[in-house]
Order: sequence, then C-alpha cells, then structure tokens
Amino acid sequence: MFVKTIAVTESEQCQTVHIDLGERSYPIVIAAGLIEQAATFAACPNAAQAVIVTNTTVQPLYAAQLKAALQSKYGQVHTVVLPDGEAHKDWVTLNLIFDGMLANGCDRKTVLFALGGGVIGDMTGFAAASYMRGVPFVQVPTTLLSQVDSSVGGKTAINHPLGKNMIGAFYQPQLVVCDVASLNTLPAREIAAGLGEIIKYGPIADMNFFTWLEEHVDALRQRDRGALMHAVQRSVEIKAWVVGQDEKEAGLRAILNFGHTFGHAIEAGMGYGNWLHGEGVAAGMVMAAHLSQRLGLVDVEFVQRLTRLIERAGLPTRGAVLDAADNAGAYLEHMRVDKKAEAGAIRFVLIDGPGKAVVRSAPDALVREVIDLCCSQGVGIQVAE
Amino acid sequence: MFVKTIAVTESEQCQTVHIDLGERSYPIVIAAGLIEQAATFAACPNAAQAVIVTNTTVQPLYAAQLKAALQSKYGQVHTVVLPDGEAHKDWVTLNLIFDGMLANGCDRKTVLFALGGGVIGDMTGFAAASYMRGVPFVQVPTTLLSQVDSSVGGKTAINHPLGKNMIGAFYQPQLVVCDVASLNTLPAREIAAGLGEIIKYGPIADMNFFTWLEEHVDALRQRDRGALMHAVQRSVEIKAWVVGQDEKEAGLRAILNFGHTFGHAIEAGMGYGNWLHGEGVAAGMVMAAHLSQRLGLVDVEFVQRLTRLIERAGLPTRGAVLDAADNAGAYLEHMRVDKKAEAGAIRFVLIDGPGKAVVRSAPDALVREVIDLCCSQGVGIQVAE
Repeated sequence: MFVKTIAVTESEQCQTVHIDLGERSYPIVIAAGLIEQAATFAACPNAAQAVIVTNTTVQPLYAAQLKAALQSKYGQVHTVVLPDGEAHKDWVTLNLIFDGMLANGCDRKTVLFALGGGVIGDMTGFAAASYMRGVPFVQVPTTLLSQVDSSVGGKTAINHPLGKNMIGAFYQPQLVVCDVASLNTLPAREIAAGLGEIIKYGPIADMNFFTWLEEHVDALRQRDRGALMHAVQRSVEIKAWVVGQDEKEAGLRAILNFGHTFGHAIEAGMGYGNWLHGEGVAAGMVMAAHLSQRLGLVDVEFVQRLTRLIERAGLPTRGAVLDAADNAGAYLEHMRVDKKAEAGAIRFVLIDGPGKAVVRSAPDALVREVIDLCCSQGVGIQVAE
Repeated sequence: MFVKTIAVTESEQCQTVHIDLGERSYPIVIAAGLIEQAATFAACPNAAQAVIVTNTTVQPLYAAQLKAALQSKYGQVHTVVLPDGEAHKDWVTLNLIFDGMLANGCDRKTVLFALGGGVIGDMTGFAAASYMRGVPFVQVPTTLLSQVDSSVGGKTAINHPLGKNMIGAFYQPQLVVCDVASLNTLPAREIAAGLGEIIKYGPIADMNFFTWLEEHVDALRQRDRGALMHAVQRSVEIKAWVVGQDEKEAGLRAILNFGHTFGHAIEAGMGYGNWLHGEGVAAGMVMAAHLSQRLGLVDVEFVQRLTRLIERAGLPTRGAVLDAADNAGAYLEHMRVDKKAEAGAIRFVLIDGPGKAVVRSAPDALVREVIDLCCSQGVGIQVAE
C-alpha cells in the first residue's frame, strides 16, 4: 500500500493533501473556519447516527459548532465527552465511547468524529477500529501537534501501565479536517509542543523546510494563519511520503520517530501527561543529535543549529533527570520496553547528515554519555505562557 | 480480497485447505496428532519469543505438548493461562495477555498461539491484532466448534456487557492447526455444539453435505477420526468460499449467521456461557427454518428434516423462555442490538429452498408467532453426557 500520488490543491482559503492508500485513501483539508461548515463534511459516509468524541476542554469550545455542521447529514448526533489528558488514555476511558455507542444503539455504519488533540484522535480511532470490528471515523484535530502528527499514518492506540501506545490498531480515517482557526484557543505551551513535531521534519527529510521554519518560527508562535497552514501542509506531505513507503512501520517509517526514543523515556519516566509529547520529542531530538554527532554523522554546528531553533520555538532543549542515582540507567530501561525495540535492542533514529535520517543501534556507553550531557536536575517545562 | 483458489491437499494422514487472501493467505492443516509435532509449526514466523495463550481446562491437557513442539523454533516460550469460559471473554481477561507479554518484554515480532476453543481464539486473535498494533498469531483450536468456526474469517473479539463480540478486529492468523485427536478429551456436549455449527452449512450451501451428515452423525458423535476430518474440512471449505467473496461482512457473508440471530438472543438472554454457542445456533436454526416456512420459502418437510438431524446430533431443538411475561418481546429486544441489525431493523438469515440462504427482514408479528411456537419453559440443554 503506497502513497502513489500526493496531490496538493492550493488556494488562499483552503489546501488539500490527498493521501492515496487505494481503497483506504482520504483527503486532509487545511483551512481556517472548517469546523462550523456543513460543506466540510458533505462527502463523509452516510449513516443514521454520528458520534462526536471530545474532551472536557474542547467540548465547550467547538462541540456545538461541529454538531450543528453535522446535523443536516445525520439524523442523530451524539456527543461523548471524555476526561482530558494523556493520563486518561486507557481502557477505562476508551470504554466510555463503547458504552455511549451501545447505549444509543449505534450500528456498524455509525460515523465517529474525533474532536480534540492526539489523545482524542488515538482513542477515537482505536474505538472506531474495534467497535463491531470497525466503523468509519473522521479526525478533527484541534491542536497543532495532532494536526501534523495524527493526520497521517493510521496509528491509533491506548496506553498500558507498562508502556505508551502498547494497545492499538492501524486504522485509516475517512477524512481529516485541520481547522487552523481552532488553534487560536490553544495554550502557547501546546503551540510550542506542536512545533517540536514540525521541526522534526527538517533534519530527517527537508532542510529547506528547516530554513523556512527558522524564518517563520516567530510568526508560527504568534499563530499567523498562513504560516500555520504552510507548516501543517508541509509536515503532512513529508509524513505522507514516508508512511506511503512503509504503511505498517517495517522500515523507513521509523525515521518519523526522530527524538521519540529519548522523548518517550522522558514522558514515561516523568509520568504521562507531565511532559507534553512534543516537549519530550524536542529534548529527545537534541539528545539524538548529540548521539549522531558523537558517532561522526553530523558536526557540532548542526547540533547547535537544531538546539537553537528548538529553543526559539519555546521548547525544552535538555532532558529531565528520571533517577538521581542512575539517570542513564533509567533512560535505558524505558527505551528497552519501547515498541520500536527488538529483542531488547534499542533502535535510535539518528541524523546521517542534515536532511537524512538513519535507524541504528548505538553502544550503551555512548548513549549514557549523551544522557549525562543532556539532562539537568530540575528541568521541567520552560515555556512562557 | 477474494479466495482465489481453495486448494485441498488430501492424504490419509493430513488435509490442508489453503485460504488465499493475497499477502494475508494462510493454510488450515487438519489431521490427528499435529499439536505435539515440531514439523507442524516449521513455517511459522521466526521470533525470539512465542506466547501460548490457553485456559485452565486446556492447559493441563495440551500446553506442555505444544510448548515442547515450539521450543526448537523459539528461544523463549511463555504460557498465559486464562480463566475458562465465555463469561471471561472481556477486557479484564484480555488484559492478562497484554500484562504477560509486556512483563516478558515481548516485542512486535512475538508470535501468539491460541490453544483452546472459540473464546481463546477470539481473545488471542484480538490481543494479536492490538498488541503493539499487531503481532502474528497461530490458531490451535481444540474444540470441534472452533475448528470449523474460528479457522476462517479473521473475526476476533471480546464481549461488552451490552452485547456479544462488540469489541474486536478482523485479523488473519498465519496458520490454523486442527488436531482432531484433541477432540478426544472434549465433553460430549461440546462435540454436539460443534455439530450445530457444522449442520448449518447444509441448508445454506450444500445439501449433499447435509445428506452425508445424516449418514455420519452417529460416527461423528463417536469421534470417528475420518468422519471428523471430513466434517471439519468441508465446513471450512464452504466457509472459506463464502468469506472469500465478502471478507468484511458487507453482504453474502451474513448467510453464515443462519441460526445465529435467534441463537445470540438465547445466549445473551440466558447469560453468556449457560447455553453453548452451538446450542443456541441449533435452536436458532429451527426457529429460522420455521420463519422461512411461514414466509413460503421452504416446506414443512424441510423443517422437520433439519429438526430431526439437530435432535440426532444431541442438540436442543427448542428455544429457552427468556421472559415469562413477554418472551417474544425479550427475543426481539436482544435481536435489535445485534451487530447485524441496521438502524434497529433485524436482518434474518432464512432458507430460500434447501441449500440456499437469503438475508431479509420479517414482520414482527410473524417473528413473534415463531418464537411462541418454538420456545418451551424450562428448556435447557438436553445432551446426554
């Protein structure tokens, strides 16, 4: 299953990236003001019922608008409101979606709408993959991170106490609606976290985009709509190109996890939800860059340039200390249970010259050196609100 | 994804039905004594670890044999033992599989082996579909029902308090091993329940097979190996032919649910696990046959012939009373939340002349008549042990 073509339609108002996965193809629509328009959802699957899944934070902001937009198409539009946060990305909360659907007699044609950030998208997607063995779903991501990260790849999951995203499915949406106007209500810390995931695409694939980000990072933090639309579009295009060559994450797709191996260790070690995903990725990218440099793959200047952009984006450039007695040991332990590990061997995504990623293992001693260099006691989240 | 060819290899010792689903193709091997042979599993995917998932009933009978057969191929073979029964087909029990896998550091190449009946197969399959978004799995069904029913179709699931098999995935095994010798330890009641699912294939697809069953029902109940191998093989072939034309259950596949709409109502109404699935299907087939007859699709003789074979198989021919005050109402209520219902309309699988099934709705009044005719107070399970 390959992305045969990524057709991009550009207009001042709206950009569309077509993800071509054969019978599972879908469009990503990027514009301001999409959520409130019935026309946005005209091509969604027909059904008697639709279910909006959202959380307590997003519900008061956008659920009524989305419901109004859907009511001309669906006879009944239910809303399931989940508690907010990564800490609730578990079976108990997932089951609230199933409870709501069964209580309302939802059949296997019912369409789910994920309205919220990555946690809502991942959980709603897994619920859609599993309810009666699969119902259609639509992503309406309302955070910058989820607009660039959850739009492409078909990854859905919940967490397990022993590991993040351990239980899930590959399942594609029917449509992704990225309404950049919804980013106006996003806290500055979450805009920055989204930039962490966007910055990633430079070192692994496109240094021209990295240069554009250096020029537009301030505009992005100020929520310039044109800049946001371009950043989302370009990130989604690069991700689609990578995923299209490797839908089920056997090889190349692993490069999308640049910064994630160290980042997941920070997220898990600090307790899910204390560091935002994009913050863990940001500090993780700096650590992976240092590891790349020590292996002779990039020079010190590249590490400094990446670190500088991450800092300007308002993101942490240093990791947290997970264990004062043996910090590197704690990181290694978390990284060994990562899904990407194979038989206990940690696979790092490293930069093999700016704009190109490579997946490989590294000597424990070198990894320990980098962790010791890149972590500080008391490092938390240093984002100005 | 179609079954392009169903190649059947026959020898005195072993029969193989090849299920052709493109890159998800797999063989079903049918013979006596397969579990204990390492050669049976030679073509299974390579991995550092394998996990046998079984239950407290099957574990003492066959787990050690299977483990010994797998140990030449896998460095570590773990065993997860679940409580036995449909009542445990839930998230709490499913999570025991995830707990065991994560505690043992199982990676995304780990192979799961489902050793047991339909509940073990469905749960292990869903665990395999969901663990790290998908690991390979092998079915080793040890009941007659699961050998004919779980071998083909890729259906995996757990139950929800509001409905059976509501949460699951379509996910194909790498291999299915039907060891008819393992049926020697099966209680007579479960042999009969398996025959219920086997008898189904006559009315919906192959009246020659129905005649063969009339001639061999006693041999099957006496566990004649040759008869069992043929019954499993022919059932699997018919199911593969049907599923091959409709992998995701959009249309034709629904005919496999002959007897299941009424049967699920009995199972749910009596509490899961009190009636065996094949028992519910048996009484359900009689009810569906009566409904077919009242709609003018078959004659009374056909209904009597089907009822007689079901009786000779040691299966119930009458449904249980679910609610003394309004029994038909109770059945209708259960049938309306069935996955196969669409917007509350019940879709019945009826016999449109012997050997051919049709899926359609029926007037509530007629359905009520049939339920009143076919249910008796105090009907339980009438199988001689």
